[in-house]
Amino acid sequence: MPDARPIGVFDSGVGGLTVVRAIVDSLPGESIVYFGDTGRYPYGPRPLEEIRDFAVQIAQHLLEQDVKLIVVACNSATAAALPEVSASVPVPVVGVIEPAVRAAMRATANGRVGLIGTEATVRSGAYQRAFQALDPAGTVEIIAQACPRFVEFVERGDTTSHELLQAAEGYLALLRVASVDTLILGCTHYPFLRGAIHHVMGDDVVLLSSGDATANAVYDALVSGDLLRETGGPPQRTFESSGDPDRFATLVTHFLNPQFRGALGVPLLSVWED
Amino acid sequence: MPDARPIGVFDSGVGGLTVVRAIVDSLPGESIVYFGDTGRYPYGPRPLEEIRDFAVQIAQHLLEQDVKLIVVACNSATAAALPEVSASVPVPVVGVIEPAVRAAMRATANGRVGLIGTEATVRSGAYQRAFQALDPAGTVEIIAQACPRFVEFVERGDTTSHELLQAAEGYLALLRVASVDTLILGCTHYPFLRGAIHHVMGDDVVLLSSGDATANAVYDALVSGDLLRETGGPPQRTFESSGDPDRFATLVTHFLNPQFRGALGVPLLSVWED
Repeated sequence: MPDARPIGVFDSGVGGLTVVRAIVDSLPGESIVYFGDTGRYPYGPRPLEEIRDFAVQIAQHLLEQDVKLIVVACNSATAAALPEVSASVPVPVVGVIEPAVRAAMRATANGRVGLIGTEATVRSGAYQRAFQALDPAGTVEIIAQACPRFVEFVERGDTTSHELLQAAEGYLALLRVASVDTLILGCTHYPFLRGAIHHVMGDDVVLLSSGDATANAVYDALVSGDLLRETGGPPQRTFESSGDPDRFATLVTHFLNPQFRGALGVPLLSVWED
Repeated sequence: MPDARPIGVFDSGVGGLTVVRAIVDSLPGESIVYFGDTGRYPYGPRPLEEIRDFAVQIAQHLLEQDVKLIVVACNSATAAALPEVSASVPVPVVGVIEPAVRAAMRATANGRVGLIGTEATVRSGAYQRAFQALDPAGTVEIIAQACPRFVEFVERGDTTSHELLQAAEGYLALLRVASVDTLILGCTHYPFLRGAIHHVMGDDVVLLSSGDATANAVYDALVSGDLLRETGGPPQRTFESSGDPDRFATLVTHFLNPQFRGALGVPLLSVWED
């Protein structure tokens, strides 16, 4: 039975758009409603109780748009409110933490997994709890490091400067000393720093993007739950925010189409003759 | 010393655009010239000698556009001609095979790595040779499987149909029986099948995209070689092909902007008030 309802995705801001990109790669036919709570961004410094209220409120808003599945594409909101969101809606809910933790459990060979994220995500202990739930014997050690400045670098499109690489060296030094062999990029902004993080960590560390892992979980949920859209006709993608629409529009463009960010005009197509 | 010259990227067709996407994510300030040899696509059935001639010819064409580094974003051409291309140009050359093999060497815990690709790539034995070079003791076993129909599914945007999932089950059955714990997506089209491949292989297998690994290698080469652009002003991205420009333009749009593929119009931005 095809199910034409959209997938609902939300985040405190624009980082969740990298999760949207991964979902669209695997599920190009699905309609999507994205909600970025940019008017109340960032969630990190807020009390857990407040983040829970916001998350449940946004889930209800998405439900009013008849979504068939909700993705909490925000590490802070997943850490604070995943059970509450799941309990408040009658559709499946996928967060960004558990899929990445499952992938890391498999990927580590030496049992030492690094986690980087915002201060709020690292402090919340949500990744540590997810590891405990999947690995009660505690065979995997998790070494967490907050990287507070990474988000601002990504939002201004700086992924290569000396300043960024120095910040990365500083943040990641402890993880290198700890010999982690797997590193979870525990913030939806970080896929854009993959090259820089790999450069600092080296070839011996597997980098896991929570966006890719989450998109895989969404794919599984739709296929296994017989929820694929499968109809003809173009899907619809709607992007909503609670904050300044112009800045949101700019960041939506940058995050969904980084290949246009700052590039000159549209791609030039030409033909080369033998 | 900033280096404003573009990066040259080529492929027998459009699959290499997924590598471009990964490069742009990590290196948004770099100018890029992409050449898709769509007029002579596919390379797979051609004699090795001919593929070598094409690859060297295209590398020269890119060099005439003053590129600072060349990415052979094509598994067939990397397999057939990487040493010849490297020897024919005075700039660094990065292929798609070795970066993925390095990542797989690290990612496997049980020493059983799967490889999927086109028939030409699998038959060429290039991945097997790359493993041998990096792992002379032969501690890693590679199990290769050609998936000839995957490319056509991706090019028509089908990543979820019953037919596709059945094809995937068939192609991947041997790799599941062989208990690989790591799987190289050895074709630049396959990132779009990540959800389907993960669905069939399950959570216990790490999927490695050669595009991500290659982008990391390009990042390393530019940073270590002091070749970053680092200038103000927008980068330029040029897309050239040797075949039908209309079909090429359509596929460039689909591969670089899959979120627009078949979606209704541009994203709608709206504001939600509390």
